Amino acid sequence: MNEKLRIFACSSNPALAEEMCACLGISLSKLTITRFSNDNLFVQVLENVRERDVFVVQSCTQPVSDNLMELMITMDALRSASARRITAVIPYYSYARSDKKDAPRISITGRLIADLLQTAGANRVLTMDLHAPQVHGFFSVPVDHLTAVPLMTDYIGQSYDLSNTAVVAADAGGAKRVGRVAARLKLPMAIIDKRRVGDQNVHQGFVVGEVKGKNAIVFEDEIATGSTMVTTIHTLRDAGVETIIAGATHPILVGDAVQNLSSSPLQELIVTNTCAVGPEKRFDKLTVLSVAPLLAEAVRRIHTGESVGALFT
Amino acid sequence: MNEKLRIFACSSNPALAEEMCACLGISLSKLTITRFSNDNLFVQVLENVRERDVFVVQSCTQPVSDNLMELMITMDALRSASARRITAVIPYYSYARSDKKDAPRISITGRLIADLLQTAGANRVLTMDLHAPQVHGFFSVPVDHLTAVPLMTDYIGQSYDLSNTAVVAADAGGAKRVGRVAARLKLPMAIIDKRRVGDQNVHQGFVVGEVKGKNAIVFEDEIATGSTMVTTIHTLRDAGVETIIAGATHPILVGDAVQNLSSSPLQELIVTNTCAVGPEKRFDKLTVLSVAPLLAEAVRRIHTGESVGALFT
Amino acid sequence: MNEKLRIFACSSNPALAEEMCACLGISLSKLTITRFSNDNLFVQVLENVRERDVFVVQSCTQPVSDNLMELMITMDALRSASARRITAVIPYYSYARSDKKDAPRISITGRLIADLLQTAGANRVLTMDLHAPQVHGFFSVPVDHLTAVPLMTDYIGQSYDLSNTAVVAADAGGAKRVGRVAARLKLPMAIIDKRRVGDQNVHQGFVVGEVKGKNAIVFEDEIATGSTMVTTIHTLRDAGVETIIAGATHPILVGDAVQNLSSSPLQELIVTNTCAVGPEKRFDKLTVLSVAPLLAEAVRRIHTGESVGALFT
Amino acid sequence: MNEKLRIFACSSNPALAEEMCACLGISLSKLTITRFSNDNLFVQVLENVRERDVFVVQSCTQPVSDNLMELMITMDALRSASARRITAVIPYYSYARSDKKDAPRISITGRLIADLLQTAGANRVLTMDLHAPQVHGFFSVPVDHLTAVPLMTDYIGQSYDLSNTAVVAADAGGAKRVGRVAARLKLPMAIIDKRRVGDQNVHQGFVVGEVKGKNAIVFEDEIATGSTMVTTIHTLRDAGVETIIAGATHPILVGDAVQNLSSSPLQELIVTNTCAVGPEKRFDKLTVLSVAPLLAEAVRRIHTGESVGALFT
Amino acid sequence: MNEKLRIFACSSNPALAEEMCACLGISLSKLTITRFSNDNLFVQVLENVRERDVFVVQSCTQPVSDNLMELMITMDALRSASARRITAVIPYYSYARSDKKDAPRISITGRLIADLLQTAGANRVLTMDLHAPQVHGFFSVPVDHLTAVPLMTDYIGQSYDLSNTAVVAADAGGAKRVGRVAARLKLPMAIIDKRRVGDQNVHQGFVVGEVKGKNAIVFEDEIATGSTMVTTIHTLRDAGVETIIAGATHPILVGDAVQNLSSSPLQELIVTNTCAVGPEKRFDKLTVLSVAPLLAEAVRRIHTGESVGALFT
Amino acid sequence: MNEKLRIFACSSNPALAEEMCACLGISLSKLTITRFSNDNLFVQVLENVRERDVFVVQSCTQPVSDNLMELMITMDALRSASARRITAVIPYYSYARSDKKDAPRISITGRLIADLLQTAGANRVLTMDLHAPQVHGFFSVPVDHLTAVPLMTDYIGQSYDLSNTAVVAADAGGAKRVGRVAARLKLPMAIIDKRRVGDQNVHQGFVVGEVKGKNAIVFEDEIATGSTMVTTIHTLRDAGVETIIAGATHPILVGDAVQNLSSSPLQELIVTNTCAVGPEKRFDKLTVLSVAPLLAEAVRRIHTGESVGALFT
Repeated sequence: MNEKLRIFACSSNPALAEEMCACLGISLSKLTITRFSNDNLFVQVLENVRERDVFVVQSCTQPVSDNLMELMITMDALRSASARRITAVIPYYSYARSDKKDAPRISITGRLIADLLQTAGANRVLTMDLHAPQVHGFFSVPVDHLTAVPLMTDYIGQSYDLSNTAVVAADAGGAKRVGRVAARLKLPMAIIDKRRVGDQNVHQGFVVGEVKGKNAIVFEDEIATGSTMVTTIHTLRDAGVETIIAGATHPILVGDAVQNLSSSPLQELIVTNTCAVGPEKRFDKLTVLSVAPLLAEAVRRIHTGESVGALFT
Repeated sequence: MNEKLRIFACSSNPALAEEMCACLGISLSKLTITRFSNDNLFVQVLENVRERDVFVVQSCTQPVSDNLMELMITMDALRSASARRITAVIPYYSYARSDKKDAPRISITGRLIADLLQTAGANRVLTMDLHAPQVHGFFSVPVDHLTAVPLMTDYIGQSYDLSNTAVVAADAGGAKRVGRVAARLKLPMAIIDKRRVGDQNVHQGFVVGEVKGKNAIVFEDEIATGSTMVTTIHTLRDAGVETIIAGATHPILVGDAVQNLSSSPLQELIVTNTCAVGPEKRFDKLTVLSVAPLLAEAVRRIHTGESVGALFT
Repeated sequence: MNEKLRIFACSSNPALAEEMCACLGISLSKLTITRFSNDNLFVQVLENVRERDVFVVQSCTQPVSDNLMELMITMDALRSASARRITAVIPYYSYARSDKKDAPRISITGRLIADLLQTAGANRVLTMDLHAPQVHGFFSVPVDHLTAVPLMTDYIGQSYDLSNTAVVAADAGGAKRVGRVAARLKLPMAIIDKRRVGDQNVHQGFVVGEVKGKNAIVFEDEIATGSTMVTTIHTLRDAGVETIIAGATHPILVGDAVQNLSSSPLQELIVTNTCAVGPEKRFDKLTVLSVAPLLAEAVRRIHTGESVGALFT
Repeated sequence: MNEKLRIFACSSNPALAEEMCACLGISLSKLTITRFSNDNLFVQVLENVRERDVFVVQSCTQPVSDNLMELMITMDALRSASARRITAVIPYYSYARSDKKDAPRISITGRLIADLLQTAGANRVLTMDLHAPQVHGFFSVPVDHLTAVPLMTDYIGQSYDLSNTAVVAADAGGAKRVGRVAARLKLPMAIIDKRRVGDQNVHQGFVVGEVKGKNAIVFEDEIATGSTMVTTIHTLRDAGVETIIAGATHPILVGDAVQNLSSSPLQELIVTNTCAVGPEKRFDKLTVLSVAPLLAEAVRRIHTGESVGALFT
Repeated sequence: MNEKLRIFACSSNPALAEEMCACLGISLSKLTITRFSNDNLFVQVLENVRERDVFVVQSCTQPVSDNLMELMITMDALRSASARRITAVIPYYSYARSDKKDAPRISITGRLIADLLQTAGANRVLTMDLHAPQVHGFFSVPVDHLTAVPLMTDYIGQSYDLSNTAVVAADAGGAKRVGRVAARLKLPMAIIDKRRVGDQNVHQGFVVGEVKGKNAIVFEDEIATGSTMVTTIHTLRDAGVETIIAGATHPILVGDAVQNLSSSPLQELIVTNTCAVGPEKRFDKLTVLSVAPLLAEAVRRIHTGESVGALFT
Repeated sequence: MNEKLRIFACSSNPALAEEMCACLGISLSKLTITRFSNDNLFVQVLENVRERDVFVVQSCTQPVSDNLMELMITMDALRSASARRITAVIPYYSYARSDKKDAPRISITGRLIADLLQTAGANRVLTMDLHAPQVHGFFSVPVDHLTAVPLMTDYIGQSYDLSNTAVVAADAGGAKRVGRVAARLKLPMAIIDKRRVGDQNVHQGFVVGEVKGKNAIVFEDEIATGSTMVTTIHTLRDAGVETIIAGATHPILVGDAVQNLSSSPLQELIVTNTCAVGPEKRFDKLTVLSVAPLLAEAVRRIHTGESVGALFT
């Protein structure tokens, strides 16, 4: 299988790429990324890739602009080096959040980046848990859109007694995602309805649905500074919720996230390794599940032409 | 203003186009659409359009395929007749509902149609209340995406005492839309959480949020056979809701919709004329608000280069 | 051979696709085409097509717009499902008739549809007896353009004594096609020169060439309502022609075609099954020859990389 | 009108461009075309063309490849010099003859050149009497396709008594064109049916239609070596035709054309100046009508946005 | 003039954009650029730009990736806000240095960025002193490529007695640029021929040409850490050069540049403000000439359609 | 290896293509190129190329326009005949000299031709010693850019005692190329600095660098009329140079080149066969080295997916 398969990693998450390679029994292919004194990036691919089926692993974590430029320059180098097919493996596609025009004269940057990646040479995309499933349609190349939700719900189902638990969306925009999770776990759902209060930019949350005296699972797609999560936890506690656990596919964990979350009355936060979780981001309540086996299996099926759809269900 | 402005109507909703022209004080421009014996469509534009700023009004109502082909052939004729700019005015863009890949090996047809319209010559699009706001990003040409929600909420606010009323989403996917309406009307919100029951494809709805003893406004983007709406009404009645009114921008109203809705315990259904509402679709409880002034104003601003964003807020 | 080959049929002519599969010794692959209540089409491909060489069979018969949309949505689904190559097999490409701009401000729709099919994912096209051979040049993807004329002339040559026969074109536009047929059969040719008579849209035909006392073979590319054919037959009878037989690749046969043709003094009408000929279109004088073996052989050669040109001569 | 209008001429037919400018009351704009010692062409535009509406006049006469390259390099220079719009004025588009695939593994070069011209910067095309009207559809930019046929038939109608005359097509492929001319002049038509005789590549012509004792007008789109025309004349004389006159829009007139035609029993040959007719190509029987007024009027209308369709009828 | 003209500045060099606006007598238009907690950039244009002729000023200085993303997101927002034309004003285009493939499997990133900018919405580019003039050809949109060399040579000519002076290129790649400067100033030229010495990556420079006892002007396109310049100065001093002055269009001035250059035996370094030169980059020997008047005049001419070529000579 | 590999030659240099085939042990594939009486080119490919990996060899020598059109029409025929991949093998790409905009309103034709070749069907390009390495970036398809410089320097090193020799660039633009050659041969370098003298277009050359009493090797990329070379030789002789030898990859050798060069005090001129060197171009001092083995090896590696980069070093 692996004769023509090549996996490269840019800077954002080489550990994930290494783990994927281990699952597939191949070595990570080599490239160098350096920076000239004028701050230009320079990428050199160090192995022949002619007629190879190449996958490049890069997540859109901080520094996002550098990581995107790295990915695009790498793909351009691979294309001009005659790679047969280039798949951008983007476990966390951050700009999926810029998916609509809810203010005048802004960019739907999730679409722009999709166009740029294609201009730079992406023939396919492999990604996980996009902020909205419609973002899939921003790409004109084939996309395999995997989800880590079953991985996280299976873990939660095995770790907790869920007999008196509701699944909660932190805002109305998450209702659909949480509705599917609730149906999967056969639990009731609730949502936080956020309203602006007074003249300033202060929001207050109201719980819609029955949560008093129950435990709660809060589900998000990503968790950045954790401030939304902390607010949600307090709203739920005020509404009489007992134990609160949280799940989010993408652990950005920037700013005071670690402190905010570790000091909150959260029982456990379950995330995956779509974004690199370095030692400085680890804390007691944090559980990191690996998506490497899932991504590796998808790469294998893309390479050999087997159905990837079967991984969805 | 109007010397270079031309508005054409294809077959789906000429009355709306005529009303837009009346708002702008211009005449509807002329074209003929006929059908050869081999079922091929034939469009001829009957006025010189060289260097003109042309708008073509067509909604994606039944027969959708014919209406899309009409629109595309018309734009192709206009383009090859040297129109300076062609704006597809699509008050109801039906395929916005095919916006994600929630089953294997299906088409995100909302994106496909966007690409086809651009291939056929659309330089811009003017549309209303897309099923999901992300669909805006399926287009690579500029889109002006208007909303009829303020028109409908203003009407409701003026017609009803809303002091004891909740705004209800018929499913989790509508939570975000309904949340905005509720905030606008300063009312609480609720959603119907639908679950599959047993082995068959039967769904049961649970009301999430407080509705007992209240009145309810159910908000949808479109209403087709009305069966979802009727089910929602019964769920709400079972949950103790008093008066129920409903709003939906796009009145497809096919099948038994008129009978289903007029015989239901619905107080009033408010829609717009993005889709033509012929006499056979009218019934006592139905109120049709016209979006023609809004669309006409947007056309005027696009033509003269004034901000359209101001119409959003 | 067949491991990577997949043939799908949309709605217009599944019997032809089945017959092609039988020739190739493979099964027809499965997809479902349904319609939502808002009249949107929904296609789901039911087999893994990753890295497969896929052919989709669809003729542009009534309802043409639906059939084109079906074909395009199917190809989009196949493309996003990672098919390696998609060939649109369009035995009858109806819009080939819209091939020039003979009136102001019309669309050369034969070119537009070619562009749309490519936007929707067609990597190649396989078609038969285009109205004008120039339509081939409307496509920028490779086209294999087969002809059923030898099939029909061979049948006629075996069925009739042609010693006193002329081949007749129903109008000047068909002269070139008929000239080739006449040369192939080593027969003289004639054409009908149609002229407008008086102020109204009435045309009268004059026979150019010697036909008196001869038998005639009238050759067309398609036959829709049959009214042109019936007029031609009467013109020829008035000019002293004895037995008249007719050939046309594409049997649209709509409106009163069956009644018009079966009651005319026509000896036999030879067509093919590029368009489905249901029981309601069958009548005594009609002979339907199958193009399935020819199309199947072309598919086989395209798939294996053998010359298709050899099929032309 | 003329402030923003610029007309340039490449090498093939500057006299026509000068005459067009005279009709429009403007000066021909200046460019230089030179050739480096390595045979590379070099074009420099000598006037500011920013935001101008530019027309470049070039016919595809010998040397065709150089003339096409000149046209493309000129358009590229104009585009990069920020011309607002570039119209390729190609009175004679020679490759329109390569319009179909009538042998295996050949190029439909009429389409290829259309694509190349667009790549090189053509925003529009203005041309005359394409070999087949379908070639219009090879372009994806707007084309204004004029005809010189009325110019020539008006001249013939004024110069000759046509009471006993037939209009003749030199082969079946010209039947449609000649049929329209015959209808316009209210004359009968005939065609020459050419057949291969024996094993060698010798063709014999048979007249289809009544011509004995009549005069004949032979109509072609272009006339190159004149050998087809001379053969046609002899076939007609053998069939008993009296006076023969001929018309062709495009006078290529290469090889022994002048000698062949001037020594033949042709009464008069009417052509236009779409191709430059230098003194060495002039002979007594040749009449050259100017298309400059027609092209100039089309340029004027394209520039000002008036209907060009009116020029067709 | 200015009614339809809009100039925006991204983050890299707002002072230059302000100075350009002052030259043109208009105000700088407003936008906001912020950063979400997940490090995504967010741009909002704060003025209506429909049908406006928009220029966006952004230099590719540190942080280059962020600055490129800012520029692209801004252009995407402007495009979808219906700007009529977008010109990317990139005074310093850093990736012009990645202009060839001098190692295996690298990206010609100067071309990639050109393609990305066009994908993001650039209709034109205005830039200065590209590293190699061929980089102009990497763009398929019109480029106005200005030069600051006359500005710098005029300053030098007025400030120094050049009677005994040579113009020196720091390496063979700069010979052509320096040759033109030398011809302009009617001075002799010399170049430094750099060779690798021994096994390590150490280079030694040899002066080719006569410099002993002369003064020297060293000309570069950009100056980053200054280490090349310092080495060149020492090579020249060793070769007997007296006074040394230096000129470079683009002052990157990173790392120890200020210290290196101010402590070197350099008389004066003349640069421009294509890159922002903050107080921390200023030192006694540094002279910064403003290109704002030149860029402003180019913007004016692009906007009004006057020749920009006149600015080159 | 060779089952799927096909090499075709257009008219410019079939001997080189034959020699490449001999190196690879395959036969040259067959096509015919003819010319219609209207000067249109006609290409027919005479072998099945479906799914084949096709290489077309054509150099841009006189007549350049015809040769480019031949190449493009051939590639179009191959593409529409379903070739799997088409590589344009252009040993001498003449328009690489039109690589920048050094005068107003000219075309960067090197980029234009690159775009045209891609429009015509080139999937890859294989070329040698482009005038400037940046021209590589004009192509958006992968390019393999080989060099014949080592071939020539190895020959020179084996033929001459270079102990007292300088490598000379005929103008500043060649300094970088010559610098690399000098470094490779461990020789000093010099350049000719050309200046305009007086009002007329007369240039005088000054030698920059030490050449008196030395031998010289003059290196160019191409040699056309030889007049630049002859002038350079005289300048060097005036400066006291003894023996002069010259090297140039591309032997255009037009006009009086043979006479000019054979009568000059040149010791030897070393070129390659990228351009066909017929008997009329041969003279005593001329040595032609074959690049066929190098090109054949590159073709082999491209076809089999081995690294071509290894051929560069």
